[in-house]
Formats: sequence, structure tokens, C-alpha cells
Amino acid sequence: MIFGTRGSKTQIEEGTDFSPKFDQEGLIPVVTSDYASGTILMQAYMNQEALAKSIEMGEAVYYSRSRKKLWHKGEESGHIQKIREILIDCDQDCIWLRVDQIGDASCHVGYRSCFYRVVPTGSFGRSKQPIQLKINSQKVFDPKEVYKQSKDTEKS
Amino acid sequence: MIFGTRGSKTQIEEGTDFSPKFDQEGLIPVVTSDYASGTILMQAYMNQEALAKSIEMGEAVYYSRSRKKLWHKGEESGHIQKIREILIDCDQDCIWLRVDQIGDASCHVGYRSCFYRVVPTGSFGRSKQPIQLKINSQKVFDPKEVYKQSKDTEKS
Repeated sequence: MIFGTRGSKTQIEEGTDFSPKFDQEGLIPVVTSDYASGTILMQAYMNQEALAKSIEMGEAVYYSRSRKKLWHKGEESGHIQKIREILIDCDQDCIWLRVDQIGDASCHVGYRSCFYRVVPTGSFGRSKQPIQLKINSQKVFDPKEVYKQSKDTEKS
Repeated sequence: MIFGTRGSKTQIEEGTDFSPKFDQEGLIPVVTSDYASGTILMQAYMNQEALAKSIEMGEAVYYSRSRKKLWHKGEESGHIQKIREILIDCDQDCIWLRVDQIGDASCHVGYRSCFYRVVPTGSFGRSKQPIQLKINSQKVFDPKEVYKQSKDTEKS
């Protein structure tokens, strides 16, 4: 088994055994950033099988919660993610994937990054209106074109 | 209420109402990166109150799952996170926080980033040994010194 068992706090935080923590649903959160620019492209989840496949293939394989199946990123859009580096955090319950994003776009909505809207800060007091987001990017592809062969767009 | 209700897929993905999705435990995952370098510092969670406080104060306030309470990052260590930008992803179920990290360290283990270990890639076949992580950073502070007034170190 390529994953270690969860040991003591010291073993998990200071040790070198890879002992990722999967939650009650068998998933671990994954943050994926663009290797060159550092931009965070997306956040998704992996189960044990997806993580093992990602490590072996060197390409991002997630587990789609909405579709309840393994999701080789780019399988429909062609927007594969080539893994440059995988990191694990202190308590080994989150993975950071640094990738080369093929097609230069990762978001199924058509943007380079899933994080294309900014939340303004400051006091909103007792406002009865929801905070208004500001779009800070432009779409780089048309989802209708990229996903035209499938009704089932790639979704986390 | 500063948060909108969850509308249609199109409203959530293409709209400007801030309608974050909190999971069954009332939490939303948050990824925090260093504004200047782009390094991902940590991943944690916020509940509605933590998110509202972060937006209002301009400093990172999380919800500690292990301690079951609001966690104003840096409250014990002094390692406050000044928010430069908050972004939300396409389906509004993950937040990206870009911060200035006071004290230049965010991890309770003593490292600048919680992601101080690399997972090697490639085929591990039927290995019976867990994958061995490689430490790629050096500690920038001594947790015993920083947290000496408290047994309850800042933990997510």
C-alpha cells in the first residue's frame, strides 16, 4: 500500500510517511495551481484511487462528487493537467497540485481559473442585499464549443 | 443578509450575487496564499460568521474544526493574515484568500507554509512501504517559543 497508516501527531506532521487523511466520504481536498504563474486554478477532491492514479500517471485525476466517479481532468475538454509537483500539508489532510494546464484553461465555465470573481471587503452593516461580486477575468473559451459532444460537462 | 440564497446553476456561476455554499457542517473550504509570492500557505474552513468577520475586518478568521470555535488566525502566535483579496470559485463552494502574512509564517509546525513536504510521483507498483515524503523547506520559527503561553496551538 502506497499510503501509510495515520500515526501520532508528530509522525503525521514531522514524519516522511505519506499518510493522507480521507474524510468520512473517502475524500481529500485538493488545491490546484498553475506552475508558471502561481494562479490557483481550481479546488476539487480525490479519493484513494484518484490520488494513486495522479501519482502514477503524473496527470490530475480527481473524484467528481456530482458525477460520483473518477474524473481524469481534461478527458472531455482536452484541458489535461500535467503534474509538476504534489505537496501535502502539515496534518496531511489537503493536497496542493502544481500543474502545467494544457489549453491554458481549467474552468468548465470558460475561464482560465475557477476563481474569476472577487468578493469586496469592508463593512456591509445590516444590508438586506447580498454582496455583489466583481468579475476580474475574461473567458478564454466557449464551453458550448468545447463540451459540444457531451451534456455532461466536467464538473467537480 | 450579506450572503445571497443559492439560485440556479447559471445564477451561481455567471451571476454577481455572493451566494457561498456551506456544507452539511456549515463550512466552506478556504485556500490561503501569500499575496507577494503566490505560495499557498494553508487550507482551512470558515463558517458563515468567520466569513462575515473576515470580510468586515480584512483579516483572516477561520473556523477551527478541532477546537470547534472561531479562529482569528494569529490570535496566539501574532501571525495575523491581512487580506488583500478574496475570490470565490465558479460553483461558489471554495474561497481563495490572498493575504500578507505577518511574521512571514503561517504553519503551527514552524514553517512558512503548511505545504513543506513533496510527494514523489511515478509508479510504486505493489510496494508494501508507504511513499516517502521529501521535506523541501526549513522552519522559520520554533513553535515551543511562539506558543509557550498556550497548550492549545492554533490548529485548523
